[in-house]
Amino acid sequence: MQRNSFGSFINITLFGESHGPAVGAVIDGLAPGIIIDENFIAFEMEKRRAVGAISTPRQEADRVEFLSGVYEGHTTGTPICLLVHNENTRSADYDQLRNIPRPSHADFTGRMKYRGYADPRGGGHFSGRLTAPLVAAGAIFRGLLAQQGILLGTHLCSCANLEDALFPEDDTSLRTAISALNEKRFATLDDDIGQQMQTTIVAAKNGGDSVGGALETAVVGLPVGLGEPFFASVESELSALLFSIPAVKGVEFGLGFGFAYLNGSQANDAFCLRDGQVRTTTNFNGGVNGGITNGMPLIVRSVVKPTPSISLPQKSVDFVSGSEVTLEMKGRHDPCILHRARAVADAVVAFGLCDLLCQQYGVSWQLKPLETPTGDN
Amino acid sequence: MQRNSFGSFINITLFGESHGPAVGAVIDGLAPGIIIDENFIAFEMEKRRAVGAISTPRQEADRVEFLSGVYEGHTTGTPICLLVHNENTRSADYDQLRNIPRPSHADFTGRMKYRGYADPRGGGHFSGRLTAPLVAAGAIFRGLLAQQGILLGTHLCSCANLEDALFPEDDTSLRTAISALNEKRFATLDDDIGQQMQTTIVAAKNGGDSVGGALETAVVGLPVGLGEPFFASVESELSALLFSIPAVKGVEFGLGFGFAYLNGSQANDAFCLRDGQVRTTTNFNGGVNGGITNGMPLIVRSVVKPTPSISLPQKSVDFVSGSEVTLEMKGRHDPCILHRARAVADAVVAFGLCDLLCQQYGVSWQLKPLETPTGDN
Amino acid sequence: MQRNSFGSFINITLFGESHGPAVGAVIDGLAPGIIIDENFIAFEMEKRRAVGAISTPRQEADRVEFLSGVYEGHTTGTPICLLVHNENTRSADYDQLRNIPRPSHADFTGRMKYRGYADPRGGGHFSGRLTAPLVAAGAIFRGLLAQQGILLGTHLCSCANLEDALFPEDDTSLRTAISALNEKRFATLDDDIGQQMQTTIVAAKNGGDSVGGALETAVVGLPVGLGEPFFASVESELSALLFSIPAVKGVEFGLGFGFAYLNGSQANDAFCLRDGQVRTTTNFNGGVNGGITNGMPLIVRSVVKPTPSISLPQKSVDFVSGSEVTLEMKGRHDPCILHRARAVADAVVAFGLCDLLCQQYGVSWQLKPLETPTGDN
Amino acid sequence: MQRNSFGSFINITLFGESHGPAVGAVIDGLAPGIIIDENFIAFEMEKRRAVGAISTPRQEADRVEFLSGVYEGHTTGTPICLLVHNENTRSADYDQLRNIPRPSHADFTGRMKYRGYADPRGGGHFSGRLTAPLVAAGAIFRGLLAQQGILLGTHLCSCANLEDALFPEDDTSLRTAISALNEKRFATLDDDIGQQMQTTIVAAKNGGDSVGGALETAVVGLPVGLGEPFFASVESELSALLFSIPAVKGVEFGLGFGFAYLNGSQANDAFCLRDGQVRTTTNFNGGVNGGITNGMPLIVRSVVKPTPSISLPQKSVDFVSGSEVTLEMKGRHDPCILHRARAVADAVVAFGLCDLLCQQYGVSWQLKPLETPTGDN
Repeated sequence: MQRNSFGSFINITLFGESHGPAVGAVIDGLAPGIIIDENFIAFEMEKRRAVGAISTPRQEADRVEFLSGVYEGHTTGTPICLLVHNENTRSADYDQLRNIPRPSHADFTGRMKYRGYADPRGGGHFSGRLTAPLVAAGAIFRGLLAQQGILLGTHLCSCANLEDALFPEDDTSLRTAISALNEKRFATLDDDIGQQMQTTIVAAKNGGDSVGGALETAVVGLPVGLGEPFFASVESELSALLFSIPAVKGVEFGLGFGFAYLNGSQANDAFCLRDGQVRTTTNFNGGVNGGITNGMPLIVRSVVKPTPSISLPQKSVDFVSGSEVTLEMKGRHDPCILHRARAVADAVVAFGLCDLLCQQYGVSWQLKPLETPTGDN
Repeated sequence: MQRNSFGSFINITLFGESHGPAVGAVIDGLAPGIIIDENFIAFEMEKRRAVGAISTPRQEADRVEFLSGVYEGHTTGTPICLLVHNENTRSADYDQLRNIPRPSHADFTGRMKYRGYADPRGGGHFSGRLTAPLVAAGAIFRGLLAQQGILLGTHLCSCANLEDALFPEDDTSLRTAISALNEKRFATLDDDIGQQMQTTIVAAKNGGDSVGGALETAVVGLPVGLGEPFFASVESELSALLFSIPAVKGVEFGLGFGFAYLNGSQANDAFCLRDGQVRTTTNFNGGVNGGITNGMPLIVRSVVKPTPSISLPQKSVDFVSGSEVTLEMKGRHDPCILHRARAVADAVVAFGLCDLLCQQYGVSWQLKPLETPTGDN
Repeated sequence: MQRNSFGSFINITLFGESHGPAVGAVIDGLAPGIIIDENFIAFEMEKRRAVGAISTPRQEADRVEFLSGVYEGHTTGTPICLLVHNENTRSADYDQLRNIPRPSHADFTGRMKYRGYADPRGGGHFSGRLTAPLVAAGAIFRGLLAQQGILLGTHLCSCANLEDALFPEDDTSLRTAISALNEKRFATLDDDIGQQMQTTIVAAKNGGDSVGGALETAVVGLPVGLGEPFFASVESELSALLFSIPAVKGVEFGLGFGFAYLNGSQANDAFCLRDGQVRTTTNFNGGVNGGITNGMPLIVRSVVKPTPSISLPQKSVDFVSGSEVTLEMKGRHDPCILHRARAVADAVVAFGLCDLLCQQYGVSWQLKPLETPTGDN
Repeated sequence: MQRNSFGSFINITLFGESHGPAVGAVIDGLAPGIIIDENFIAFEMEKRRAVGAISTPRQEADRVEFLSGVYEGHTTGTPICLLVHNENTRSADYDQLRNIPRPSHADFTGRMKYRGYADPRGGGHFSGRLTAPLVAAGAIFRGLLAQQGILLGTHLCSCANLEDALFPEDDTSLRTAISALNEKRFATLDDDIGQQMQTTIVAAKNGGDSVGGALETAVVGLPVGLGEPFFASVESELSALLFSIPAVKGVEFGLGFGFAYLNGSQANDAFCLRDGQVRTTTNFNGGVNGGITNGMPLIVRSVVKPTPSISLPQKSVDFVSGSEVTLEMKGRHDPCILHRARAVADAVVAFGLCDLLCQQYGVSWQLKPLETPTGDN
């Protein structure tokens, strides 16, 4: 049935193909009167843009055009349609792929599902370009969260076999770290590691290969009580969004898969009181208990597989001849999408949290301070 | 807004509290004429039931009662309401927890979200008992899949520091392994490992502690083309369902987090032809490309944290006195829920796949053979 | 796909068959802490119950049982499952109808859609009994509205060829009229007319026939601003709910079909100021402009066709013999359902408005006074 | 929360404002491989366009641009975004209305709901222009229905105090009448009446006034079994869509409000056999029993109130001065929208039926002949 919409209270609908006139999104459910900061949107878009030796040579300006829902610099409260135009397309590069699917890419499954009618140019609807309008939308959501003192950021916690430094544990240091991260084009906490990662990516590219890694997103300042049991736990909502990002193959919260090896007595986060607030002394659960935020920083990691489009020869099949062939890809591709996907992770986490905030508080939280729950009748 | 329903074409709505009269589910969207096999439902329920030294002493018969939607042994096509009655409740055990939340449990977040009105007995709506009607529903879905030659099963791939054998790679051996697994009460591929895991669980229990681990689910026989981009990828749908299971903190497909350390040339699954069908020589992607099934076995792993309810003393806070306290829990609890959660993983994966099958094929696939997609116009 | 759920923020799922063990509903999305007034629920149920010569002889106690979501007299915030048991069933009456569909009833379409698997006893899922849990749920919603000073009521504005008096125009008189109506078992504004209607119904029954009529619902005290464009206008939401009531064949707001014969200059509601509030001097639009409430009383009428189950001989067909036959129905049926459907109209309008209130205000309006919109930034 | 999307299997999302750059729609859920007939789309758009003395002088080319989802003349199966550009805007006309709401228009409720942030130019999101992309989408849906032999059309059954001829009763004559209707710009069955209606509209315009009327839509060729109980009856789905059309204030099926005055013995549609098919001798129920199509022609009427924008002086209030004022409107407006709304009624009915077809048959019906239900196991 196609499901290009997501969200219960706020809704995003994505559309577009890589080499069509534009990709875009419709956002429904924003309050009227939210200031649209086009500079901040451009700043976020810039993080997702390809740039330099570590990315595809396809360069797009990625300017965001608003067709509706914004008037005199504010949201109107009616749906926003935003477009990101496709300009630098080289569709001829994809002729060879029309009948020979790239291993581990959506070429094969897309062809089967869409019975040969999908737009094959540049991956069509399966292109990473679809994430451009998501990032534009995410910038609006990040702005809403920031007004409530909710700060989020993502770093490349690992890339190939390199590991970044860890997020600091206390809220204040975490805020500082996130703020610094959000200014960076290549998002690592440790800049030296970041430099090494970039070197590794360039090396992979030069070898006709690609690399993977993992992203870690932290959110600080969330109120207690977000998440809608049974099926819309914070983890369910955010994982559904993160798994929508092409190439994400795993999502974990807090210790995640590390929980498998611990006893309850090691893994439980003891409660304590800090400044009259209930907090936990550790944060192994990544800020979520029973699918509901507990007021501690939310920590979620997503693994991003190495880009399947590589230049090295690969075994594939030819739909027309019905035979096994060796594919040697031409065309422009990213040797790593981790540093670009980071902006998408920020965007979808911001969106998911805004939607959960609406589910708990209605639309009005978008424009005024959140009430603090007390747990009392 | 509470979101106790899931599913786009088939819909499940859960209700109930641990110590209320019953927990249950309403299933909407099944075709008329499906045979309801009460023996198979009972067999699946049995896998989720607590039993022996490795589980909570709370014993429930877990008989499934149908209030609607079933007539003369068939589905009517109208909604099924099924109940699982709560019989063996000892609510007094929970008096001490009314104001002292268990670390890493939903007690604290539930109290905050529901402002003190939630039913505190036995964890109320947050109890693992809510998964009983899910397993009952899952048995129906498994039956539908089996009719189409789609077989699924889950094993405890790790428990504490013990690791089970791996799923075999070829379809035939995998089918055999899954079938054997589905007969087992404690689901490991290697029975010796299974025995050691049970010993470990008992040891944890005797020490007042608990253990975690991971579940791995395999599905063989799926058609190519399931999954609804952009937001309802197979991974998004199944992860949202798996993260709804209490205690699941991570979900990964295929190599999952292992992708972080590989190059594209290592991680890509090369295409080949086998018996005229396009297949892949490896299955690192766990049967999903671009969010859509590719015809290879679907492989998904879920990590289950150690049960937070333990007898060892833990730090907590008292809502009434507003002070830090030490909690020494009484009551009956599971030292490990992995072996029981396995039945829930089977159930939600079966449900998710049935819903995706409906999204691709409409309701009619429930009653007649699936058409095989060809990728041609 | 079956769609037995309705509501965007608050969700109701209906289940059950006329002669199964029970009919029921799951209500999801209520705030925690709402007082459940079982007496008021029983009072509302009583209005829908069959009674006396004007209704079917099938008598049901219609006691409401809560399986979940209510604890110590309050909502818990988790889903409410409520049951209404079926007790007085005489399934044998329906044997003759198994293969001979009643004209203008759902027998034929239900058999075709459900391919002969539907429960045929008492109309199965198509029975008017399905409205019993709706009325129980509606009582909770009416209670929530009443707390906000929002009062609603429905009268039989016409029955056969008899017409009731009109609702008064000013708010104060309208409130008085609605309050009086809500106490009545047979809901007319003019009791003499009500008496004549009952006489007409009994006459129809004695002649083996049935009568139809129209219901008019008025709501006073609604805030300005409810209704969610484009597709969830107040009219769209309420009409979808009203058309779900078996036998409703038309829905109109304000002047409704009367608008067809007027000029704009006659039909427009001029604005005026009253006590500093913007009001309209007339209310031809029934309280809704552009799909959004304007603060004037909401007025909606629903036509209810004469009950299709009558004793007079009718032409039908026999599915088994494949021939035309004359059907002479036995069994118990209502000569008119208007006076009972009135309680259902109240219930679904109350539900629809509560859901729209949540969409505008979030869940919190359920427990505290509504803010008055001002139209200012 | 704003609800600019509709549809369960196929989904339409609307966006745009009257004087923004464009209005548009995203359509999700179409099968791949549907031929997009741009000429037919243009033909349908033409019916909705303003033209001549009976409409607003605002002239728009209303060319439809596809941004996505169409490739080489076919649908791709991924979302279609279509735009209709706004070109002939005279925003200055609306300056006077910024603070003085037009009686019976959405100006007042829109201002209150959107707190003064809505785009006031040309009615913003509340403009009838939003129906342009609906008509474009509707053309695609009509094409799909036509392939299945399902034909629909709408006539102005009344305008002011003039009444058109009735639809013929037998299927063959009805098909002929609908086909003729679909070729007409001003859609009446009786052309003389149509001429008189146009004269009446011009007279209203010359007097600074407007007129209303009613639309009647007929659909022939529908299979038995569409409609998803309990809440998604055919009547619920179509009425929700029809009430979304600005100015529609009532919707009725078959005899509609006429049922109020009949006995069951008069109003029931007797079953008969015709060519081996179960049919009814009359069609008082307008093709729907129990919320499900019965194979007879579907008949639905919608009343359209007189356009609220008139030139005659009207009483209103001034938001700024807080006083009652007399409004004398300038600007361009339609003296009647009935003849244009007819294209919108066609579009939304076609959409609603296509969605219900998908709910019953899955997506595949869009591309191959429907199976005929038999009612047998």
